[in-house]
Amino acid sequence: MNFGFGVDVGGTTVKIAYFNQEGSLLDKWEIPTDTKNGGTQILPDIAASISDYLEKKNIPRSQVIGIGIGVPGPVDDDGNVNCCSNLGWGVFNVHEALKALTGLPVKAGNDANVAALGEAWKGGGHGCENMLLATFGTGVGGGIIIGGQPINGAHGAAGEIGHVMVNRHEQEPCTCGNYGCAEQYCSATGVVRLAKMKLSASDRDSLMRTCQHLTCKDVFDAGAKGDALALEVLEQVYDYMGQFLAAVCCTLDPELVVLGGGVSNAGQPFLEGVKRYFDKYIFHASRSIGFALAVLGNSAGTYGAFKLILDAQRKSFQE
Amino acid sequence: MNFGFGVDVGGTTVKIAYFNQEGSLLDKWEIPTDTKNGGTQILPDIAASISDYLEKKNIPRSQVIGIGIGVPGPVDDDGNVNCCSNLGWGVFNVHEALKALTGLPVKAGNDANVAALGEAWKGGGHGCENMLLATFGTGVGGGIIIGGQPINGAHGAAGEIGHVMVNRHEQEPCTCGNYGCAEQYCSATGVVRLAKMKLSASDRDSLMRTCQHLTCKDVFDAGAKGDALALEVLEQVYDYMGQFLAAVCCTLDPELVVLGGGVSNAGQPFLEGVKRYFDKYIFHASRSIGFALAVLGNSAGTYGAFKLILDAQRKSFQE
Repeated sequence: MNFGFGVDVGGTTVKIAYFNQEGSLLDKWEIPTDTKNGGTQILPDIAASISDYLEKKNIPRSQVIGIGIGVPGPVDDDGNVNCCSNLGWGVFNVHEALKALTGLPVKAGNDANVAALGEAWKGGGHGCENMLLATFGTGVGGGIIIGGQPINGAHGAAGEIGHVMVNRHEQEPCTCGNYGCAEQYCSATGVVRLAKMKLSASDRDSLMRTCQHLTCKDVFDAGAKGDALALEVLEQVYDYMGQFLAAVCCTLDPELVVLGGGVSNAGQPFLEGVKRYFDKYIFHASRSIGFALAVLGNSAGTYGAFKLILDAQRKSFQE
Repeated sequence: MNFGFGVDVGGTTVKIAYFNQEGSLLDKWEIPTDTKNGGTQILPDIAASISDYLEKKNIPRSQVIGIGIGVPGPVDDDGNVNCCSNLGWGVFNVHEALKALTGLPVKAGNDANVAALGEAWKGGGHGCENMLLATFGTGVGGGIIIGGQPINGAHGAAGEIGHVMVNRHEQEPCTCGNYGCAEQYCSATGVVRLAKMKLSASDRDSLMRTCQHLTCKDVFDAGAKGDALALEVLEQVYDYMGQFLAAVCCTLDPELVVLGGGVSNAGQPFLEGVKRYFDKYIFHASRSIGFALAVLGNSAGTYGAFKLILDAQRKSFQE
């Protein structure tokens, strides 16, 4: 048993990757996510794709450790999912369902936790046992690794750090219904929102005014060119990011914070901006927490998913 | 091996308790904490007190599981302490030092984590595997239990939740040097501070004006009698408490939050006040987190300390 699969189920595509037990990615591909009929075809499609691959490559099932799978919703340790609304899934057991379809051992986890596990294993947090992955994309999410293991929380909602309240004076609601969530300022959408507010509040010149459909990347690009208004927006963003990450790290005291998601493509200046405000807000005993950029991009989920099944199988051999 | 000791080392007294393996407290006493000469006498005093007890009660050492000990500072899994400034301690290994003095197995932990473990085992969180203990005393602290185990963090600072920033407009520094920490509003000292600010900002009548040296209890007592100014202060306090506990619970998603410390002696109205604002700020997926009052008072540390050594010994038998 030297090989296995990591599967990352998203709302539009399922990423599947084939690994050796050292965690080298040997192959990867995608299939569409069929969300019709309550998503009942998703697991059969994954099973068929994996079976085809094994057959085509002439790999005996005895060589396969199993399948790790990350899904966009709460999952408990036994593999029970509870409403993955993006997929149309209700309540059922992924371990049993996918094992029945493939004959292989299965271990499931929440996608954000699984991505954190991937970054902790082979990414920006390589070898780190206590780590926070903060992802800044369309929304703001997180995954927590303690003692090398992802933390699920009692309701599968641990690491929902985008909904830490950072501004009690906010008048517009967050998508979650609350007011002043970190996500309203620190997601790609949030950055654009702050930039538009800044632009409409003054007549000052800005490169951002030349963009017909202002994007988060436009704001960072303008900032990189020294645009004063864009730099003011980014200071606001970094301030909120530093604030909520300090709140999370006061709680967890991790060794490392890994910054991921599309917004983190702004790279080193982004990391330094966040760190500057984090240092202002963090409790002194945790001041040596490190910061790094995520490196696995949208492969983090498949790496982490494979690590899930690898750990589960190792543990079952020890018992 | 049916009995053991739980020791809680404070800055002025050391609490020692004797338990059976079911966790019934059979006996307890205190000795003074001798912080002279870098606290070098503290462990010898504990060892002597335990030896005296065993001799006096005619208990053979073969009946004793070991000694669990909570100390006011960072401790790693191997028992290395790193500056317990209240005790004068620098860097050394508590496991080895106390074992050498007593001949008994020793397991050490941070006092806040150990108190959380006690409340999770035999207190307000009885039987709870995922729990946050928030203590509101002279300061605000916390202890985190995940999967039945206390979480230390990478620098021994996990659960330092009193230093989550809740007010970016604060002008006075916290004892930690930062500005706007939860502790500045939610500790006993913080409640009195807010009350004094409220009193000096208006001429309105208040029962609090009749107190020569206003205490936190005076504020709660005035509130219980319907004093309008005191009730306004308490609403502010509950709001900040709800805010920072929601930030912590967005991160951890525990099953239960247990409220402890002197401020929590205000009881059910206190719990309901905090919960009201927590519900306003918490992410919907974690809205079913329960709240309870701590019940072990200042015995929580000895219960948790004994649980530490009990778990450590059980684990060593399994290995």
